[in-house]
Amino acid sequence: MSAIEITKEFIEELTSHIDNEQMEDLSPILEKLFPQDIAEIFDDLNLDQAVYLASLLDDQKRVDVLTELEPEVKLKFLRGYSSDDIANTFFALMDSDDAADILNSIESEKSKEILRKLTDKEHSKNIASLLKFPENTAGSLMAKELIRVKLHWTVKQCTEEIRKQAEDVSNVFTAYVVDDYEELVGLVSLKKILLSPESTQVEKIYRDNVISENTYASGEEVASTMQKYDLVALPIVDAFGRLVGTITFDDVLDYVKDEAEKDYQMLSGISESVESTDSIWLNTRARLPWLIVGLAGGIASSLVIGNFEAELQKYVQLALFMPLIMAMAGNVGVQSSSIMVQGLANNSIDSKKIYGKLGKELAVAILNGLVCSLLLMGYGFISGNSKEIMMTVSLALLTVILLAAVVGTIVPLILDRLKIDAAIATGPFITTSNDLLGLFLYFLIGSLILG
Amino acid sequence: MSAIEITKEFIEELTSHIDNEQMEDLSPILEKLFPQDIAEIFDDLNLDQAVYLASLLDDQKRVDVLTELEPEVKLKFLRGYSSDDIANTFFALMDSDDAADILNSIESEKSKEILRKLTDKEHSKNIASLLKFPENTAGSLMAKELIRVKLHWTVKQCTEEIRKQAEDVSNVFTAYVVDDYEELVGLVSLKKILLSPESTQVEKIYRDNVISENTYASGEEVASTMQKYDLVALPIVDAFGRLVGTITFDDVLDYVKDEAEKDYQMLSGISESVESTDSIWLNTRARLPWLIVGLAGGIASSLVIGNFEAELQKYVQLALFMPLIMAMAGNVGVQSSSIMVQGLANNSIDSKKIYGKLGKELAVAILNGLVCSLLLMGYGFISGNSKEIMMTVSLALLTVILLAAVVGTIVPLILDRLKIDAAIATGPFITTSNDLLGLFLYFLIGSLILG
Repeated sequence: MSAIEITKEFIEELTSHIDNEQMEDLSPILEKLFPQDIAEIFDDLNLDQAVYLASLLDDQKRVDVLTELEPEVKLKFLRGYSSDDIANTFFALMDSDDAADILNSIESEKSKEILRKLTDKEHSKNIASLLKFPENTAGSLMAKELIRVKLHWTVKQCTEEIRKQAEDVSNVFTAYVVDDYEELVGLVSLKKILLSPESTQVEKIYRDNVISENTYASGEEVASTMQKYDLVALPIVDAFGRLVGTITFDDVLDYVKDEAEKDYQMLSGISESVESTDSIWLNTRARLPWLIVGLAGGIASSLVIGNFEAELQKYVQLALFMPLIMAMAGNVGVQSSSIMVQGLANNSIDSKKIYGKLGKELAVAILNGLVCSLLLMGYGFISGNSKEIMMTVSLALLTVILLAAVVGTIVPLILDRLKIDAAIATGPFITTSNDLLGLFLYFLIGSLILG
Repeated sequence: MSAIEITKEFIEELTSHIDNEQMEDLSPILEKLFPQDIAEIFDDLNLDQAVYLASLLDDQKRVDVLTELEPEVKLKFLRGYSSDDIANTFFALMDSDDAADILNSIESEKSKEILRKLTDKEHSKNIASLLKFPENTAGSLMAKELIRVKLHWTVKQCTEEIRKQAEDVSNVFTAYVVDDYEELVGLVSLKKILLSPESTQVEKIYRDNVISENTYASGEEVASTMQKYDLVALPIVDAFGRLVGTITFDDVLDYVKDEAEKDYQMLSGISESVESTDSIWLNTRARLPWLIVGLAGGIASSLVIGNFEAELQKYVQLALFMPLIMAMAGNVGVQSSSIMVQGLANNSIDSKKIYGKLGKELAVAILNGLVCSLLLMGYGFISGNSKEIMMTVSLALLTVILLAAVVGTIVPLILDRLKIDAAIATGPFITTSNDLLGLFLYFLIGSLILG
């Protein structure tokens, strides 16, 4: 772990040093902190404090801190600098993908100005070229910085190239081999370069079986390829097979975590990505849509039950077991749908094998339904409730579990076939529709048995 | 992407080649496939077919395929080999952490035999040393293979050491610097070694500010440190600060994904990690516990409502809105609890700031509650339901939303303080308790208003 732990007291001490501009106290502390730690501290500083603290850092560390800031903090912090400063003190030392991320979140007028001011025209062009890719494609996730070597080069030439690029490419793990048309043909690990004699040709030591993705591949495809093949970096090629960038493991780790959070929130009935630290307004807005779906479902339920008011009047005990039917319909539906959604996300389900999956989910549902119905009958026997009521509830329970499993299985598969993200079929959506269906069946069976 | 796509037809062709032992057809195909692809193919082979196919691979590739197999397939496949074979054809070429994983999942008698048969005693000792760490600690996740250099060495000596270790350490990104007591004092990147003159001393080029974790750190701590600092590998030290192993990015990527899946399944009410491809029996067993919780909750609900049977008899319309109250209590509870659980997992919530969080969740709940209650009143107005009933339902709805938010917020925080995984407080657990509470409040308010 880092040598310094960032506590509330530590931040208080630091801000008092900042407010008194005690550079001689701050510098030794800053030296020991990693960019990620300083970025964390920035969360608690105002703009003036942050700009002063940043002025004490060396150029590269200042850029690394900026890259690590949370999106909102990053934009706030950058307001302390002119377009010229942003271009030539920050962007000049920043990887193209991190710079493009920033440009994507500010007004396009200011973006253009920053790119114009950047004196390293090559770098400016690289950053601009990333802006054209749609969000969540490999093109938008990749960085242009990489080590590119030629098939006919010697190891010595490779080392020279790495030395030349060393400033721009912070993490070097692999050199990518291209032919005379810039097409990606293979790779050489840094280890191989280090251990081979200087005069060896790349041709002799490179691996020609290289995994790559196209610029238009989705973030999911990139993540699953890198995870499957344990890649520290994935080369990205254009439609002609020419090497145009790489995506590194840290980007993918962040991506996997973000996606998992999104799915989790979908299942919880939260429509936008929010954190507990976000504002009350944002938290309200993210949750309200699903609550209104739930409300509409509740009103629809009242209409369904309204049709059976006569039966309810006669057998008021039926009302007692409505919650049980609803809860079980909801639980079974969420279980089935989330298993499907995860399977689809992992590519372990082929949406064409729909009948097989359905059969299996039905078998599981029959087993679970029988166990639960028998337990309920057992309870009915010792509880002294009316036998007819308990018969009705148990039979309805079995039916509802079966139907909820079918709905929970089929809906995600259908959505997937329609190329809609199946994750929306989890959580409140499936619960609400199963509530409706479950209650209807319950009262239908009730009216048939109890007459 | 890989040159060959693995389709059903491809596997059929391959198995027919295997059954006819057509080595000359198989070898060129196998050469083009990555170990991960061959591992995928193994899923569809029987033991004889798998052993035959494995016999066509070179030693290192055979080991890489084994490492990539799914746990059950791996154990099944190893049954085709003697302890001696497992030790000296597989383990000899395998990273210590992968070997330890296998030993952890077979009988301890057979484990000991394999370790005894392994002729590389140093490697055998390394593997055995990993077995003593409890599951899900850094010690159990790390591999012993790493490049270790001394402070007073020259770059040339480092290169020699890397050459010596090159066979054992497949992915080299960094060399770790230790002092004479084997304590970790810093690191040198491979890039630095490559670009520095041979006579340079490690002392002159190493970075002394190195992030590490202890062997007893949890998997979560390891993952969050590596993610925060974008580390491709994390060195692990023992209680005396001595370097004992490393954890690499691919292990962490798998870990993060597995953990996310576990949380997702917890929220869906699935108690064990299952996939849609697992057996019917496993799928049933994983889901039944939460269904029984739901069943018990349903029975408890019937008892709660039973207390209000007289009111229900008098105002049967009250029954119509029970689903609405339950659905909303459940949805709000799941939303609040999942936001808390995610915040706790990301360390963005300090469980000591409990009052602040609670205040915020309450504010969000009041906003959402008011909107939903007003919408419901509006519906009541146009629907022609009895005014008293709609007043009761709307008031109960507001109360229930508030209370569900409180329960959803507090329960995970309390569990976290008690060092219990807060994720169990999501899904069916929170839904069931909120159902009970919601219904009780609903009928209580109903009996007060309607008399």
